[in-house]
Amino acid sequence: MSTELLIGIHAVEAALNHDVANLAELYIETGTQNPRVKELGERARDLGVKPHARDRAALDRMTGGARHQGVVAHYNAPPPLPESAIADLVEKAGRDALFLVLDGVTDPHNFGACLRSCEAAGVTAVVVPKDRAVGVTPTVRRASAGAADRVPIVAVTNLARSLKVLKEAGVWLVGLAGDTPQSLYAVDLKGPIAVVLGGEGEGMRRLTRESCDFLAHIPMRGDIESLNVSVATGIALFETLRQRG
Amino acid sequence: MSTELLIGIHAVEAALNHDVANLAELYIETGTQNPRVKELGERARDLGVKPHARDRAALDRMTGGARHQGVVAHYNAPPPLPESAIADLVEKAGRDALFLVLDGVTDPHNFGACLRSCEAAGVTAVVVPKDRAVGVTPTVRRASAGAADRVPIVAVTNLARSLKVLKEAGVWLVGLAGDTPQSLYAVDLKGPIAVVLGGEGEGMRRLTRESCDFLAHIPMRGDIESLNVSVATGIALFETLRQRG
Repeated sequence: MSTELLIGIHAVEAALNHDVANLAELYIETGTQNPRVKELGERARDLGVKPHARDRAALDRMTGGARHQGVVAHYNAPPPLPESAIADLVEKAGRDALFLVLDGVTDPHNFGACLRSCEAAGVTAVVVPKDRAVGVTPTVRRASAGAADRVPIVAVTNLARSLKVLKEAGVWLVGLAGDTPQSLYAVDLKGPIAVVLGGEGEGMRRLTRESCDFLAHIPMRGDIESLNVSVATGIALFETLRQRG
Repeated sequence: MSTELLIGIHAVEAALNHDVANLAELYIETGTQNPRVKELGERARDLGVKPHARDRAALDRMTGGARHQGVVAHYNAPPPLPESAIADLVEKAGRDALFLVLDGVTDPHNFGACLRSCEAAGVTAVVVPKDRAVGVTPTVRRASAGAADRVPIVAVTNLARSLKVLKEAGVWLVGLAGDTPQSLYAVDLKGPIAVVLGGEGEGMRRLTRESCDFLAHIPMRGDIESLNVSVATGIALFETLRQRG
């Protein structure tokens, strides 16, 4: 468990709604005129969390100048899950298992947006390599609209080994790569699967790519065949849901 | 035309590849060890753009501390198109017309990622209201991987009127909204269409929503039914391409 700073209405509201027991301290701007912040303060009180009033300058200092909207909190964030959790997660999810494996996503906006999509898609868990991933930073949390604290994240030291664990548990690995002949829409995504994507720069590592059961691309029209990794993730996850109906 | 700052390898490389005539000045970090930056400098020279050497501190000052990777350029960006361009754009695109209308996207990362998806999807043009949109800032340009200078952007003063122009030109307006019964996958996206989305906070304005011929939602699974606007945009654009086959 680590204490994290939640910054802004969205992030704090999410913690209030989903995990109020781990909301340690709540700071609200003295004399705020923002009705959403006022309401948030009142709801917190109702839930037994007493907000502390702080002036804008104090909140600016706390957040290093991030856009805090007049609300900041300390939050005891759940730690990521270990590799050993994977088998259980697969078993519980059964045929609906849907994992997202991100091999090297380091931009916090992208990682946050991926987590938000994962929550909306009901993803079983997100698997990331410890040494090639951005942690759950305040920016990630904010970009995720709070999903960072609700979607199970498995942080592993050896991604290739974890992919093997997934495969042995009956999960098919579908890797997204631009330079492959098969279209994503031609892949059967109905069984238990993991969607595997590389990072912003170099894509999947060789070992990761070789671990995939299928490789597929998202068919495009433009001259520049490249999507933001969180957009590609969203397209793949929601194509999976579309096929599952 | 306005002079813009291009920051980082991706943005400068894109201008070199697609619009070198409008690349005014190129600054490269003195003694850079980054092979991609060195190569970029050599390619620029071959194309007749002589890079100026500047030390890291100077580049930091130019960019206000943004992550410039040792390369910065001044670029004469193309201005947005006026509303009067819409009819021509529709006519040229014919049955393949695919517009994106963003009513109030103000986050530069989101807008940039939307533009990048637009380019990959071969979108005809993006329509934004002047007073409820982020301009093409360096962050937008960078998040768009250069697409901001290649995808036609129509900036309009009266969005409702522009939507009418689109409709009268034979374009169907498909609005994305979470609170509608119809699934996006049940909408026929094969003819000339415009995908319409609201901003991060409040979604579409009432008049925008009422202008739509269809309203549809992206079916989700999670508790929290909300996607990042650039992810929702990507899903809608690529569902359109999937249907068009």
